[in-house]
Amino acid sequence: MSEGIVEQFQIQREELNRLVMAYAGQGTKRFYSLDSQAYRVGALPTKIKEMLGLVASFVLRCDDCIKYHIIRCFEEGVSDQELEEALFIGLMVGGTITIPHQRKAMQAWDELKKNKK
Amino acid sequence: MSEGIVEQFQIQREELNRLVMAYAGQGTKRFYSLDSQAYRVGALPTKIKEMLGLVASFVLRCDDCIKYHIIRCFEEGVSDQELEEALFIGLMVGGTITIPHQRKAMQAWDELKKNKK
Amino acid sequence: MSEGIVEQFQIQREELNRLVMAYAGQGTKRFYSLDSQAYRVGALPTKIKEMLGLVASFVLRCDDCIKYHIIRCFEEGVSDQELEEALFIGLMVGGTITIPHQRKAMQAWDELKKNKK
Amino acid sequence: MSEGIVEQFQIQREELNRLVMAYAGQGTKRFYSLDSQAYRVGALPTKIKEMLGLVASFVLRCDDCIKYHIIRCFEEGVSDQELEEALFIGLMVGGTITIPHQRKAMQAWDELKKNKK
Amino acid sequence: MSEGIVEQFQIQREELNRLVMAYAGQGTKRFYSLDSQAYRVGALPTKIKEMLGLVASFVLRCDDCIKYHIIRCFEEGVSDQELEEALFIGLMVGGTITIPHQRKAMQAWDELKKNKK
Amino acid sequence: MSEGIVEQFQIQREELNRLVMAYAGQGTKRFYSLDSQAYRVGALPTKIKEMLGLVASFVLRCDDCIKYHIIRCFEEGVSDQELEEALFIGLMVGGTITIPHQRKAMQAWDELKKNKK
Repeated sequence: MSEGIVEQFQIQREELNRLVMAYAGQGTKRFYSLDSQAYRVGALPTKIKEMLGLVASFVLRCDDCIKYHIIRCFEEGVSDQELEEALFIGLMVGGTITIPHQRKAMQAWDELKKNKK
Repeated sequence: MSEGIVEQFQIQREELNRLVMAYAGQGTKRFYSLDSQAYRVGALPTKIKEMLGLVASFVLRCDDCIKYHIIRCFEEGVSDQELEEALFIGLMVGGTITIPHQRKAMQAWDELKKNKK
Repeated sequence: MSEGIVEQFQIQREELNRLVMAYAGQGTKRFYSLDSQAYRVGALPTKIKEMLGLVASFVLRCDDCIKYHIIRCFEEGVSDQELEEALFIGLMVGGTITIPHQRKAMQAWDELKKNKK
Repeated sequence: MSEGIVEQFQIQREELNRLVMAYAGQGTKRFYSLDSQAYRVGALPTKIKEMLGLVASFVLRCDDCIKYHIIRCFEEGVSDQELEEALFIGLMVGGTITIPHQRKAMQAWDELKKNKK
Repeated sequence: MSEGIVEQFQIQREELNRLVMAYAGQGTKRFYSLDSQAYRVGALPTKIKEMLGLVASFVLRCDDCIKYHIIRCFEEGVSDQELEEALFIGLMVGGTITIPHQRKAMQAWDELKKNKK
Repeated sequence: MSEGIVEQFQIQREELNRLVMAYAGQGTKRFYSLDSQAYRVGALPTKIKEMLGLVASFVLRCDDCIKYHIIRCFEEGVSDQELEEALFIGLMVGGTITIPHQRKAMQAWDELKKNKK
């Protein structure tokens, strides 16, 4: 059932980002560039920063943001157990209201793992 | 139009719950079991507890959580008027931002009633 | 330590409500009157409605709203155990982020009980 | 890709509003009527009020509410640049978690502009 | 009772901003500068932008942010009625959970008006 | 000015936790114990888990929760720069609405550092 949700998300995201940028003023553009700066390696490695971004998106319950950081965490080499422990913290802090987002997060994670094989 | 949204939701929920559980650690499993404990009969009957869960989900604006508790409220014998009064409290507390969720809640409720006949 | 938090809250609430009403237009006034209508007895008794308002306020994490409904629940004869079960649902749905509000809720509840004796 | 998202939204909204109203009590009906009152011309013109409603919906991250106010802003003659400046404030106040909603907002806006030509 | 809440807020805000800046990295500093850019006159006048910032802060229920924008709205010449209409939209969108914030908003507004005389 | 906010918080937290536990049912008690389990060393070290808890609390804007995790991060040896990078991610994800919480977070952090000397 979950065949291709990651790819689908990436194509739509790309397409709509182009639309946003066509209308964007200087402020919006700077905001987007500041955002990518936040996840660059510093005192903390990018892997940890992506897990921070994931848990922040998780408790704020934004499926697209979660999907984005799930993909990035996968690319940065986060393990199954590290992901599970990070999302368990999100689950405790954010409560059962986050459960539907956990389902979709794990669906994307599972697809990423299967596609890699 | 709304033919089958309840059933569709239940099938997808079931399928993804299995996926979540395949990755879940002990903490996550305990959290899920604690969740079902919260709605068991106690000083308050399950019917009232499900209405509390519904209104909590409603003001936090989670469509899947609302759908789940709408189904449970229906199973526990909540009447049309009881539901309306509970959601009116949610509407007042949460404001017009909850209206799209009210639409989907009533769509699921209406389907449950029609399927029963 | 918690001596008088309920009374303090009620005095300040009263005073500031007068100020809000001094500036309020017709719409705001109607909104306030609609709000009190939501908790009047209907298919559901006021006691249950106040518990619904409490749990909604709890998961949305508004201390003043929680305090208001804690007082109303107390006046409507909610028992210790009924309160505990309702807030446990709020805790599960809303997560650990609600814990500081649970502390203040129980502080107000405890004061109400002690003042009654 | 975005062909018809505005029309689709309007048809579904209409249909589900009828369902909500079929179940609605007096309080819910009054709440809906109070809502439309809030955007009527007063000291502030409707155009500004719709932008206020848009930014409020944007930071609360409700796609349907955003779509509704995007349409209303378009009807009230909000310009591309006015929209961009309003949503940039929303983006700053609400953070990157609002970005997926910005994408959908601009998709609806772009469709409205293309349909008009 | 409300003597000096505006001044108190401004002194504490100033002091803590200095502390934040002492620890701030380049990204945080750019974020703060982008924030002030968002409210500069453009296609929309600063007065309207401050009202947008106020309503965004109001529905997200942040007392300090509301206080800041209430002061800025006052400085930009927003009238009593314009403020009331803007906050009524916030009240409708955000629901009764915003009422405690409305109380504090009007308390600050009332103090600003009295201090001016 | 910030003399003793950490100690004050810890005393009040301790006192109110005792009150919560006096009323707590079995479910609430299990929930609290599950919470402390979430931060125990696993695939991720406690230090990273506390930073995840901090950023989750930060974007959900709960001052008491932030204070708690700021203290724990300090105890786990998080550096100034690591803290700054983690909170910058929170600032980007959560937007300017988190700024008042950033102020209080840095106030507590600064006090912890000064008390240690």
